Amino acid sequence: MKLITFGEVMLRLSPTGVDRLTQSSTLTMHFGGTEANVAVSMAQFGVPVAHVSRFPNHAIGQAAAGYLRRYGVDTQSVRFGDGRMGLYFLETGAGTRASQIIYDRVDSAFSRIKPDEIDWESILAGTPESPVSWFHWTGITPALSQGAADCLLAGIQTANRLGIPVSGDIVYRSNLWQYGRSPKEIMPALTEGCTLVLGSKSLFSELYGVVGSTFQEAGRALMQRFPNIRYVTDTKRNSVSASHNQLSAKLFDGETVYKSRLYDIQPIVDRIGTGDAYMAGLIYGLLTFNDPQRAVEFGAAASALKHTIAGDVNLATVAEVETLERGDGSGRLKR
Amino acid sequence: MKLITFGEVMLRLSPTGVDRLTQSSTLTMHFGGTEANVAVSMAQFGVPVAHVSRFPNHAIGQAAAGYLRRYGVDTQSVRFGDGRMGLYFLETGAGTRASQIIYDRVDSAFSRIKPDEIDWESILAGTPESPVSWFHWTGITPALSQGAADCLLAGIQTANRLGIPVSGDIVYRSNLWQYGRSPKEIMPALTEGCTLVLGSKSLFSELYGVVGSTFQEAGRALMQRFPNIRYVTDTKRNSVSASHNQLSAKLFDGETVYKSRLYDIQPIVDRIGTGDAYMAGLIYGLLTFNDPQRAVEFGAAASALKHTIAGDVNLATVAEVETLERGDGSGRLKR
Amino acid sequence: MKLITFGEVMLRLSPTGVDRLTQSSTLTMHFGGTEANVAVSMAQFGVPVAHVSRFPNHAIGQAAAGYLRRYGVDTQSVRFGDGRMGLYFLETGAGTRASQIIYDRVDSAFSRIKPDEIDWESILAGTPESPVSWFHWTGITPALSQGAADCLLAGIQTANRLGIPVSGDIVYRSNLWQYGRSPKEIMPALTEGCTLVLGSKSLFSELYGVVGSTFQEAGRALMQRFPNIRYVTDTKRNSVSASHNQLSAKLFDGETVYKSRLYDIQPIVDRIGTGDAYMAGLIYGLLTFNDPQRAVEFGAAASALKHTIAGDVNLATVAEVETLERGDGSGRLKR
Amino acid sequence: MKLITFGEVMLRLSPTGVDRLTQSSTLTMHFGGTEANVAVSMAQFGVPVAHVSRFPNHAIGQAAAGYLRRYGVDTQSVRFGDGRMGLYFLETGAGTRASQIIYDRVDSAFSRIKPDEIDWESILAGTPESPVSWFHWTGITPALSQGAADCLLAGIQTANRLGIPVSGDIVYRSNLWQYGRSPKEIMPALTEGCTLVLGSKSLFSELYGVVGSTFQEAGRALMQRFPNIRYVTDTKRNSVSASHNQLSAKLFDGETVYKSRLYDIQPIVDRIGTGDAYMAGLIYGLLTFNDPQRAVEFGAAASALKHTIAGDVNLATVAEVETLERGDGSGRLKR
Amino acid sequence: MKLITFGEVMLRLSPTGVDRLTQSSTLTMHFGGTEANVAVSMAQFGVPVAHVSRFPNHAIGQAAAGYLRRYGVDTQSVRFGDGRMGLYFLETGAGTRASQIIYDRVDSAFSRIKPDEIDWESILAGTPESPVSWFHWTGITPALSQGAADCLLAGIQTANRLGIPVSGDIVYRSNLWQYGRSPKEIMPALTEGCTLVLGSKSLFSELYGVVGSTFQEAGRALMQRFPNIRYVTDTKRNSVSASHNQLSAKLFDGETVYKSRLYDIQPIVDRIGTGDAYMAGLIYGLLTFNDPQRAVEFGAAASALKHTIAGDVNLATVAEVETLERGDGSGRLKR
Amino acid sequence: MKLITFGEVMLRLSPTGVDRLTQSSTLTMHFGGTEANVAVSMAQFGVPVAHVSRFPNHAIGQAAAGYLRRYGVDTQSVRFGDGRMGLYFLETGAGTRASQIIYDRVDSAFSRIKPDEIDWESILAGTPESPVSWFHWTGITPALSQGAADCLLAGIQTANRLGIPVSGDIVYRSNLWQYGRSPKEIMPALTEGCTLVLGSKSLFSELYGVVGSTFQEAGRALMQRFPNIRYVTDTKRNSVSASHNQLSAKLFDGETVYKSRLYDIQPIVDRIGTGDAYMAGLIYGLLTFNDPQRAVEFGAAASALKHTIAGDVNLATVAEVETLERGDGSGRLKR
Repeated sequence: MKLITFGEVMLRLSPTGVDRLTQSSTLTMHFGGTEANVAVSMAQFGVPVAHVSRFPNHAIGQAAAGYLRRYGVDTQSVRFGDGRMGLYFLETGAGTRASQIIYDRVDSAFSRIKPDEIDWESILAGTPESPVSWFHWTGITPALSQGAADCLLAGIQTANRLGIPVSGDIVYRSNLWQYGRSPKEIMPALTEGCTLVLGSKSLFSELYGVVGSTFQEAGRALMQRFPNIRYVTDTKRNSVSASHNQLSAKLFDGETVYKSRLYDIQPIVDRIGTGDAYMAGLIYGLLTFNDPQRAVEFGAAASALKHTIAGDVNLATVAEVETLERGDGSGRLKR
Repeated sequence: MKLITFGEVMLRLSPTGVDRLTQSSTLTMHFGGTEANVAVSMAQFGVPVAHVSRFPNHAIGQAAAGYLRRYGVDTQSVRFGDGRMGLYFLETGAGTRASQIIYDRVDSAFSRIKPDEIDWESILAGTPESPVSWFHWTGITPALSQGAADCLLAGIQTANRLGIPVSGDIVYRSNLWQYGRSPKEIMPALTEGCTLVLGSKSLFSELYGVVGSTFQEAGRALMQRFPNIRYVTDTKRNSVSASHNQLSAKLFDGETVYKSRLYDIQPIVDRIGTGDAYMAGLIYGLLTFNDPQRAVEFGAAASALKHTIAGDVNLATVAEVETLERGDGSGRLKR
Repeated sequence: MKLITFGEVMLRLSPTGVDRLTQSSTLTMHFGGTEANVAVSMAQFGVPVAHVSRFPNHAIGQAAAGYLRRYGVDTQSVRFGDGRMGLYFLETGAGTRASQIIYDRVDSAFSRIKPDEIDWESILAGTPESPVSWFHWTGITPALSQGAADCLLAGIQTANRLGIPVSGDIVYRSNLWQYGRSPKEIMPALTEGCTLVLGSKSLFSELYGVVGSTFQEAGRALMQRFPNIRYVTDTKRNSVSASHNQLSAKLFDGETVYKSRLYDIQPIVDRIGTGDAYMAGLIYGLLTFNDPQRAVEFGAAASALKHTIAGDVNLATVAEVETLERGDGSGRLKR
Repeated sequence: MKLITFGEVMLRLSPTGVDRLTQSSTLTMHFGGTEANVAVSMAQFGVPVAHVSRFPNHAIGQAAAGYLRRYGVDTQSVRFGDGRMGLYFLETGAGTRASQIIYDRVDSAFSRIKPDEIDWESILAGTPESPVSWFHWTGITPALSQGAADCLLAGIQTANRLGIPVSGDIVYRSNLWQYGRSPKEIMPALTEGCTLVLGSKSLFSELYGVVGSTFQEAGRALMQRFPNIRYVTDTKRNSVSASHNQLSAKLFDGETVYKSRLYDIQPIVDRIGTGDAYMAGLIYGLLTFNDPQRAVEFGAAASALKHTIAGDVNLATVAEVETLERGDGSGRLKR
Repeated sequence: MKLITFGEVMLRLSPTGVDRLTQSSTLTMHFGGTEANVAVSMAQFGVPVAHVSRFPNHAIGQAAAGYLRRYGVDTQSVRFGDGRMGLYFLETGAGTRASQIIYDRVDSAFSRIKPDEIDWESILAGTPESPVSWFHWTGITPALSQGAADCLLAGIQTANRLGIPVSGDIVYRSNLWQYGRSPKEIMPALTEGCTLVLGSKSLFSELYGVVGSTFQEAGRALMQRFPNIRYVTDTKRNSVSASHNQLSAKLFDGETVYKSRLYDIQPIVDRIGTGDAYMAGLIYGLLTFNDPQRAVEFGAAASALKHTIAGDVNLATVAEVETLERGDGSGRLKR
Repeated sequence: MKLITFGEVMLRLSPTGVDRLTQSSTLTMHFGGTEANVAVSMAQFGVPVAHVSRFPNHAIGQAAAGYLRRYGVDTQSVRFGDGRMGLYFLETGAGTRASQIIYDRVDSAFSRIKPDEIDWESILAGTPESPVSWFHWTGITPALSQGAADCLLAGIQTANRLGIPVSGDIVYRSNLWQYGRSPKEIMPALTEGCTLVLGSKSLFSELYGVVGSTFQEAGRALMQRFPNIRYVTDTKRNSVSASHNQLSAKLFDGETVYKSRLYDIQPIVDRIGTGDAYMAGLIYGLLTFNDPQRAVEFGAAASALKHTIAGDVNLATVAEVETLERGDGSGRLKR
C-alpha cells in the first residue's frame, strides 16, 4: 500500500499561542499544504507515502523537505529549483475572534513547475514491494499556474492508466486562479479521472454545472457526469466560536449516504488541516476496512483529533483514531 | 477627530500562560494603564490619539513610550523625569483559580507630576487638520497624588473651555488615595466637567451622595447634580470562572436606557483592560454613529473581543468589532 | 505540626503546551512523585514538611532536591547515591486527545534504597518545636523494589511506635512490581499501620480480599481487617474530555460517609498530581478542622484547584482553597 | 532638525541565536531596510525622523509600521496598498561559519510604488517647529522598480529645490535591477543631487565611470562629475571571522581625508545594518559638530556599537556613542 | 560550620541574551543581593548557610525565598512584612557596549526592617550540630535605612559577643544613603566588629580617614584603627570589554600580601555577583585551608568561574573551583 | 554511493544556552550518537545514508527516527522494540567552565539488540541504483552489550564479504563495558575488518598491544597486525578554554602522514560530535577526491565548522566545507 500526493507546500508562520501578528516578536514555523497534509496524516497511520512537489533550492526549501521526512513522507520526488517558498501567516483566534490567514504564495517555486520535471510513470509505478495504491490531488494545484495544472493532469491520467484510484478535493479559492484560466475550463478534465471526490453540492453546480437538491442527488448527478467516480464525500462544520466547533461527515457511494457521528470539539488547538485529516482518514478507511460506514467514521474521528494538534498536519495514530471512532473521547490519561 | 487621554502607564509583568508567580522564571512585558488602554484601543479604530503622561527618564520609560507608539499613540506629550516606573505583577488564573494582581506603583514618575509640566492649552488645541474631539480620564489618576489630581483638573477645565467632550471612568480603588485627600473631596470637581460618566449606582452614592434605586434613577440624579453629563454608562459582568464570563453594557442618555446584547465569553485569554476596551468602543460609537444603541453595542462587542487578546490593550479593528456587533461570533477562519 | 513523606521523585519532561512529543524540540522540566507532591502541597498550606528519598548523586539529583526546597520541603533526609534519575515523559492532551505518559523509571537511585540508609527514629522524632504529626506513603513505593518496600515498612512501624498517624494511598500499578513479589504479599503489612487509607472498593478486594457492595461496606470490612484504620477515602472522576472533568470525594469514618460537592473542572491545565492534592488537602483538613465534612471538602477543593496549576505539585494556598471550598469558584480578579 | 528617509522595509526572520534555518522551529521577527535603519538610528539620537515608504495593507504591514514607530520614527508618510511584504531569512553565523541571507522581496508593496503616491513637497517642507534638514536614500531603492526609481528621483529633486542636503549610499546589488534598466542609466541623475555619497572607488568607476587610484583621487573625480557633492565617505571592514571584525571609516571633504580610529569588534552580536549605523552617525555628526574628524569618529563608533545589538537597527544613544568615540570601550558595568 | 548572611534581596529582571531593554518583550527572573549571593555560593560548597532578611508578604517575596532555598539557603530567618520588593533591571552588554543596571529598590520591605524583628541571639547561636562559624555583611545594608543599619549593628555586636568571625564588604554606593546619615557616621562602628574587610585603599581613606600609599600600608593602618581586623582583601579588575575582563585578588594578613594568579576571562556570561563569589570563595578558603595563599587563590578562581554562570549567584562546586585553582582552565568536556 | 552506519542513538537534553542543569527549567531536545552523527553529516554532503539501530517502540523512539529522517537519513532499517531510550544530559560550559555530560543510557532498546534482528545481507546489498560504498562503526557499540557486539561483528563481516570498505572509530570508554567482556577480547575481531581506523597510538597499545613511538610507527604496526587497514587517522585538540579550541588532523596511508592545517576555533557553539564530523568529512573526502591530503583537509574543515553548529550533528554542506578548506574562514556575510 502506498499513497502519492502532489501539491504545493508552504511555510506557515504563526505567533505564539493566540497572540496577534501586530504584537508578536517571534513566529513558529510549520510547513503545510493541503495535499502534503494528507500524506503526513497517512504516514502516521503506517502507510508508505511520497509527496511530489517543487521547492526552492535553498535552506527554506530544504527545511520543508526535512519537515515532511520527519513525519515519514518520502521526498525523493520533490524537485528543487528557482522561485520562492510560498508562505502564509496564521493568526490563531480564540472565542469570538476568528483565526486569520495572510497568504503570500505568488510565484512560488511550485507554481513554476513544468510537466516534464515530474516522471509520473516512474513515481506511480512504485516498487514491487510497495506498489502505489492511491493518488490524491486538490483544487488548489490547478489554481496556481498552467504548469501546475498541466502537471497534475498528467499525473491523474497516468494514475488512471495504471489503475490507481484517484481522489480529488475540489476546493475552490476564487482569489487564486490568476493565470488566465477559469476553474470551469480546467477542473472537469481533472475530475474525470477521480474515484473519490470531496466537495459540496454548491461546488458541483459552480464548477461542473451539475445540480441536485440534496447531497445525494447532486452526488448522483456528478457520478453520471463523471462515471469513474465511485464515492462523493463532504464534511459539515458548525462554528460556535473560534474555540468551539461541531463537525460531521458523510459519504455517498451512489446508493447509500453514510453519515458519521457528530463531534463536539472544544477547545480547538488548531483548525488548519482538519479537512485534510478527514480526507486521509477516509482514504485509509476505504483502503483498509471493507465498510463505507467505518471509513467515514474513521475519517471524521481523524478530523476531530486533528483539531487538538498544532500545525497543519495530523499526527494522530490509527490506535488513537480508533479509540475516538469507537466512542471514547474521554481524554482519560494513558500511562 | 482626535482623542486625548491622561494617566499613569505601568509596566505589567506576567508569567508565561497560566503559570503562578512562584513557579515562574520568565515574565512577559506589557505596558498598560486604564486611560492609555483607551487610547491604544481607539488608535486601532483609526482615530488619532495622544496620551499625556510622565515616565521615568530611563530605558523602561523609553520602552513604555515605544509600546504606546507601536500601537499608534502619539507620545510627544509624555514628559520624562525622576521617579520610578509603576509596575504590577499579573498572575493569570484559569477555571476556579482567580487571576491576581500585585501592584507596585507607589512613588511613580507619574505620581510626581506637577500641573505646570503639562501645557493643556497647546495639547487640547490640536492642529487644524486634527482638532481634539474628546478627552478621557479615570478615577485612578486623582487617587495617586495631589499633583496628579491638580493636573487632571486643569486638563478637564481646559477641555471644557475649548468645548471638548470629556469622559470620566469614576473607578474607585480604596487602597490608593494615600496622599491625604479623600475621593469625596476631589471627585466632584472632576466629574463636573464630564459629558460621559462610567460608573455604577453604588459609586454614585459613595462618591457624590447621589442615590437612585435603579441605574436609570441614579443616572438621572447624577445628571441633575452635574448638568454637563449627557450620558451615564456601566457594564455588568457575571463571572462563571476565571475562563468564562458573561458581559453586557448599558447606556443612559437621560431618557432611555440602551442595553447591549449579552456576550458569553469563553475562553478568556486576558481579562485586563476589558472595561477600557468598552469605554473606547463606546466613545468611538458616540463619535461615529448617531445612534446610542449602536454605540453601546459597539462598546460591548469591543470589550468582548478584548477578552481574546493578550495584554492590557485592545488590538481589535473596527471591522472586527462590527463583525461581532452584527452577531457573527462564529470565529470562522478568515483567509 | 509536621508531615513526613517517603517515596521516589521523578524528573518530568513535557513538551510546550499541548504539543506532541514527536513534534517537540524543547521539554519543560518539573519534578514530582506522588508522595513528594503531597509534601509540596502541604508546604503551601504552611505546614513544615520533610521528604525522605534517595536521589542520584549528580546535577539532576541536585536539581530535584532544589525543586522540592524551592516549594518549602526540607530535603535534609534525602540521600544521594548511585543509580539514575527516574523520569517520565508527559504529553498533555486536549479535548478528545488524551494525555499520555511514557515512564522511564527502572533502576532509579530510589529503587536501590536500602533500609539502613534511612534513620527513621531520628526523622520521625522531629524536633521539640516541630514534632512529627503525620506520615504518608503510597503503593508506588513497595512496587519498585524489595529495598524500597522494606524501607517503607520500617518507616510505618516506627511511626506506629511513635504514635504518629499514617496515611496510605494504596494505588496499584500492575506494570510496576517487577522484583518478584506481588502486592498481595507486601501490601497487607504496610496497610496494617495505617490510620487513613485512600483506595477504591475494587482495590480493597484485589489487594486484601476484602469485599463490600458499597464503598461504605467495603470500608467497614477494611477497618475490620485492619483495626488501626480510622478513615477510608476515595475520589470519583468523570472524564468528559481531556480538558473537562468532574470530580468529587468521599470520606468514611466507620460511621458516616461524608461527600464533598462536585466540581466541574474546565479547562484543565494539568491533571497530574490532582489525587495527591486531594490527599494533602484531606490530611490538612483532618489535622486542622475537627470536622470530617470540612476535611473532605477542603481536600476536594484543593484537588479541583490543582487542575489549574502546571506541574505535578499543588501550589494553592489555604486561603485559595478555602475560597473555593466556600463556594466561590468565580475566578474573579483579585487586585 | 529633522531627517527624512525613503525606501523599502522588509520583515526579517531569523532562527534563535546561531541555529541554522534547517534546524529551527521558531523565527525571531525584526523589520529593517537600509534607509529605515538610518532613520531609527537617528531617532535614538533624539532627532525627529520620518520614513517614507509603501507597505502592504494587512497585519504584517501594520506590524512594520509599529516597529518603526516603537523606535521613534514617524510613519505618517507610509502608504498602505497592494503587494506583499518583502522579507528575508537571516541565518546568523559564528566563527568560521558565515551568516547567510535568503532574500524574498520580489514584487513587494514598496516595489509597486508610483510617484504620485508621495507628496514630496509636503513631506520635505516639514513644519515650522521642525523643518527638514536632511534627506537620505540608497542604491537599493532604484534597483527595485521603475516606480521606486522615479519616486526617488522626485524626492531628491524636491529636496534640492528646497535646499535640503541629500545623502546617498550608492550600494550596488547586481541581483536586483531586474526591471529592465541598468544602474548606469539610473544612478547618475540620483547622485547628481547628493551632498554626501557613501561608496567605494570601485563603485565610482563601475557606476559613473569615474576613476582614481586612491579614495582621495576617486572622490575628487566624483566631486568634479557631480559638483553638489561636498563629502565622500566609505568604511573598511576586515573580516577575521563571523564573530570578529575590524572596522574603520574615512571621510573626504575635497581637501582632507579624515580617518576614524580602527575598532576591533569581538564578539559580533549582529552584523546587519552596521553600515547604516555608520551613515546615521556620520549624518548626525555633520549636522551637530562643526568638525569632520569628529563626525567620522562618531559614525565609526556608532557602527562599532551596532555590532553588539540584535536586529537591523542601531539602538545606541548619543551618550553611548560618545563614550566609545572618546575611547572608552571597556564595557564597564553602569549602575 | 555554618554561615549567616544579612541583607536585601532584589528581583533582577533582564532581557534575553544581550537584547536591550527597549527592544525586549520578556524578562528573565533572578533574585540576588550581595550578601545572599555569598550565602548561595557557600551553599554550593556544601556549607550550611542561612540568610536573614525581610521580604514582602506576597507571591514575589515567596518566590525570592524559594529561589534562595532552591540553591540551599535556609530561609527560616527571613521575615515577611509590608513594603515592596526591591528590584533592578539588568541589560547585559557585549563587546564595547556596557551592561547597565536600573535600580528600583526604594522603600523595599527590607529597608523597613526594625531591629526587634531579628532575634540575633537565637540565629547566631545556631544549633549544637551546626554552630555558626561566620557572619557576613556589606556596606549596602547600612546605606538603605536607619532600621537596616541598626539591625546590622546589633547583628555584628552579637556575633562579636559570641566569638563568631565577621566579614564586611565595605562597598560604598553614593546614590544610596538617602535617609539622612552619612557613611562616615555609620560605617566605623560596623567595621569595628570585623575580622575580614573587603575594600580598596581609596575606600579606607574615604570612609575612615585611614591612609596608606600601598594596599599593604593602607591595610596596616586600617588594622591599627580597628584592631579586630585580621585580614584585608581586594580584587582588581581590568575591563578590556564587556565580554573580556582580567581579574586577580590579594589578601593581606598584617604581614604578607598574598596575591592570586591573574585570570583572563573571555567570554563573560554574567558579570554580576563576581565580587560576591570571590568573597564566598575567600571565606570558604580561610575556614577550610590553613593557608592564606590557597584561600585567596580559591576565592579568585571562584570569582573567575562565576563570570561563566547566568544570574547573581555562583553555582560552582568546590571540585570545579579547585580544578581551576590548580590551573586547569581548559574547559575540556567532562563525561 | 551510499553509507551505512550502525549504533545507538540517544536523546540529548540540554539547558538553554550555557545555563547550568541545576538552574534550568527547560531542556532542548537533540538526538545523537557517534555513528548516526556521521550519517547525518554525510547526508548533508548529498550522499545517501541509512542508519541501522534499535529504538524504543514509543513516541520518543519515533521522535528519534523523525530527527534522523529530517536530516536526510533513511531509517527503514531501524527496528522498534522494548527497552528505554538511552539519553544524556549536556550542560554546555563557557570559558573556564567545562561542559559536562551525565549519561543515562543503561539498558537501552539498542543495547537489547539481537543479531537476528538485523538482515545485514539485505541492508549492505543496497539497491542497483544505490549500492553501498562504505560501512562505519565505533567502539561505543561493542561496549554496550554482547548482542550489540555480536550484531556489529556480523555487519563488519558481511561488509567484508561484499567488498564494502569499513571504518572504525575505536573510541574506548572505560565506564561502558559492563556486560562482562573486555575491549581486548572484543575489539581485535572488529578491527580486523577495517579499511580505516580512527584512534590514537595510546589506544592502539591499550586495545591491541600494538606500539610505536610516533603516530606513523604505531600506525604502521597496526597495519601489520590488521592487514586490511589502509588508513589510520587521528585528530589533535588543544583546549584553551571551553569556548576556544585548536584542532588539526592527520592521516597515514602506510607511507605518508598527511596533516591538515590547524584551526583556531573561537567561539565554540557546540563541541559535541566534532570528531564524528571529522570522520564524515574524511570518508567523504576519501570517496570523492583521489587525494589523501585533500581528504584530511576536508575532514578537518568539516570538524571545525561543526563547532559552530548546535546539536550533535554537522549540518554543513560540501560548499561550506570547501570554502573553509580552501582557506576562507572570514565568515563574511553571504547574501
